[in-house]
Amino acid sequence: MTQDLLITDIRPMGGAPSALLIRRGRIAGLGPEVEAPPGVPVEPGGGALLIPGLVEAHTHLDKSLLGMGWRPHQAGPRLIDKIDTERRLKREWGIDPRRQSARQVVQSIGHGTTHIRTHVDIDTELGLSGLEGVMATRDAYRDVIDIEIVAFPQSGLLARPGTLALLEAGLRLGADVVGGLDPCAIDRDPAGQLDAVFGLAQRFGRPVDIHLHEPGLLGAFSMELIFERTLALGMQGQVVISHAFCLGDADTAMVDGLLDQIAALDIGIMTTGSASRPVPPVAKLRARGIRVCSGSDGIRDTWGPYGDADMLERAMLLGLRNNFRRDDELEMALSVCTEGGAAVMRLPHYGLRVGDCADVVLVQAETLAEAVVAHPPRRLVVKRGQVVARDGVALPRAP
Amino acid sequence: MTQDLLITDIRPMGGAPSALLIRRGRIAGLGPEVEAPPGVPVEPGGGALLIPGLVEAHTHLDKSLLGMGWRPHQAGPRLIDKIDTERRLKREWGIDPRRQSARQVVQSIGHGTTHIRTHVDIDTELGLSGLEGVMATRDAYRDVIDIEIVAFPQSGLLARPGTLALLEAGLRLGADVVGGLDPCAIDRDPAGQLDAVFGLAQRFGRPVDIHLHEPGLLGAFSMELIFERTLALGMQGQVVISHAFCLGDADTAMVDGLLDQIAALDIGIMTTGSASRPVPPVAKLRARGIRVCSGSDGIRDTWGPYGDADMLERAMLLGLRNNFRRDDELEMALSVCTEGGAAVMRLPHYGLRVGDCADVVLVQAETLAEAVVAHPPRRLVVKRGQVVARDGVALPRAP
Ligand SMILES: [Zn+2]
Ligand SMILES: [Zn+2]
Repeated sequence: MTQDLLITDIRPMGGAPSALLIRRGRIAGLGPEVEAPPGVPVEPGGGALLIPGLVEAHTHLDKSLLGMGWRPHQAGPRLIDKIDTERRLKREWGIDPRRQSARQVVQSIGHGTTHIRTHVDIDTELGLSGLEGVMATRDAYRDVIDIEIVAFPQSGLLARPGTLALLEAGLRLGADVVGGLDPCAIDRDPAGQLDAVFGLAQRFGRPVDIHLHEPGLLGAFSMELIFERTLALGMQGQVVISHAFCLGDADTAMVDGLLDQIAALDIGIMTTGSASRPVPPVAKLRARGIRVCSGSDGIRDTWGPYGDADMLERAMLLGLRNNFRRDDELEMALSVCTEGGAAVMRLPHYGLRVGDCADVVLVQAETLAEAVVAHPPRRLVVKRGQVVARDGVALPRAP
Repeated sequence: MTQDLLITDIRPMGGAPSALLIRRGRIAGLGPEVEAPPGVPVEPGGGALLIPGLVEAHTHLDKSLLGMGWRPHQAGPRLIDKIDTERRLKREWGIDPRRQSARQVVQSIGHGTTHIRTHVDIDTELGLSGLEGVMATRDAYRDVIDIEIVAFPQSGLLARPGTLALLEAGLRLGADVVGGLDPCAIDRDPAGQLDAVFGLAQRFGRPVDIHLHEPGLLGAFSMELIFERTLALGMQGQVVISHAFCLGDADTAMVDGLLDQIAALDIGIMTTGSASRPVPPVAKLRARGIRVCSGSDGIRDTWGPYGDADMLERAMLLGLRNNFRRDDELEMALSVCTEGGAAVMRLPHYGLRVGDCADVVLVQAETLAEAVVAHPPRRLVVKRGQVVARDGVALPRAP
């Protein structure tokens, strides 16, 4: 496995034709004049765009049904139906978290994703088996992708006694981030649940990432409880709110008030650009300097049939949802799916500067905007100097 | 050009393995027992799904910038900005309607579209040049795709004196359908504009297809004016309302009242499943028996950068927008993009029955639902018995 590489004839972020020199997995040079020292392998870039690795900042590697044959959707319409149905089907269908996470990871690599934040279910039925499976995948693919794990109490935290201790064990075992969800709607005890989540984060010195589907005023109330704890515990910059549907509310005075506090507390926001729910207005958040990232969320799982782990297609969906038409807007959508994810996950050495990790993607498109709307198969994907995908196909194998 | 063909090893609509026999461009047999008479060429279907041809029931063949290099979006945010900018850029950029419509048509054929309804701009600057260009394309590709043309007063009808006479000339020349748009917002004289549109339709005995972007109560008002004229002139079943954003309004009592009249007057509804606007609720319309179709609308044009003419991807976008998760819901989205378009356009001999035109598409997927969410490149596209695309690539050439 070489980690020295020269990629010629590429246009970094749509700019002038350049070459990229990678030494020991890091960017050693990028520009029109860059040449390879003797012995460094050369990849011709064919005039493709060069972008930094795509960042899948919110998914569920333990849930996907990829490769298990088509399974008709069975869950009822409510959130709680989907949670309960999934818990049942995990047993009945044998959704093995190790195998399934590996399958999704390989698909992500093929599409140019170099970093993943995944939530992993922890509950009193599964225990830590999901976490163990995804950790095994993280280990197996550690040379070709970086995976960060959120310990996620999908079935509720206080509602299911014993879950808090399991989350704690999960953090000891290898999860990186404390997860949470819908403190009103799921646990019915918002202050109690958030005290538990933030308490864990404090004790372990870990960041927090909370699924917040609650819309309108209810979501705004939960957000305020999150703000209070973020401030009281000095956790500015260490909290992410995922989905944050209440920020898509029509009451813009309420939304603006929430955004003021989100900006002041440096809270990150994750949006998938859902077409059927209210969503955070990306341009407005970015204009306030708020860190915004995106993700596929579940991919072909018991929650829904959509998704193929392509974060360039995700950028298009963000653009469609936010009515982005101008090039600068489409570039913003792309930035959410690259730098935005890196900023939310605090990835060190992410980018295209000398010294950054050589995690890069080649896309055959005329401009960044075209890369988003057309999202053609990735010509080349490189992780720390190693070629991990060509022409849309990942080189590592899936089980 | 053969129009006799046997396609083996296919699963019609996801059903049991079958063969399809085509004689003289029509379906002569479809089932497990079907065999070819001597001399009929055979195409192996490889176990793919067989579906009827995709129907692009709303696009603008005269507007696309396909193949003209990436051009940053220039139009302002309002509808009228987009209309005015486009009129200017058509001249400045030389958007040749003949060449551009041919390029889009070829892309559509590659994706399995066998029928197109296109609106074509007619105004006092362009005159009939757009119509002439698209008619030339219709003629050039008449063996490989069916194209229906709506004479579309994009820049307003009453607002620009002379346009009505041009529409009339367009219908004489070869347009099939009378178009219209936003009678309040664009022409500022809703009764006057709709009287003109329906007057033309009556004199020429043609159907009507009206772009209605007006949201909420304004759109509902325009709809009522359309209902009144449809009823008064006995044009039940001959009117289509495209976009119909007011049917996505949160005031469900208002929407239900409109749907009652739409069903009673057999008015067709076209929705693209826009992610950034209110949209008609597809399942609710279908449950009332309303004919619903879909389309790409403009593809990579001065209005916006999105789109690649894939009506299976459109079915996915409809599904995402309407929160469709179950197989029957995804099949409904597919039906909107096939039979729905055929019902709205009143296509004769459309379908998979013996005697129907052999306009069929092969998709490599396990189920119809998977075909929608994954929309893989079409394995084979057949128009009246002739193979017109293979593995996602159209056989006819674009200019
Ligand atoms: Zn999630
Ligand atoms: Zn249109």
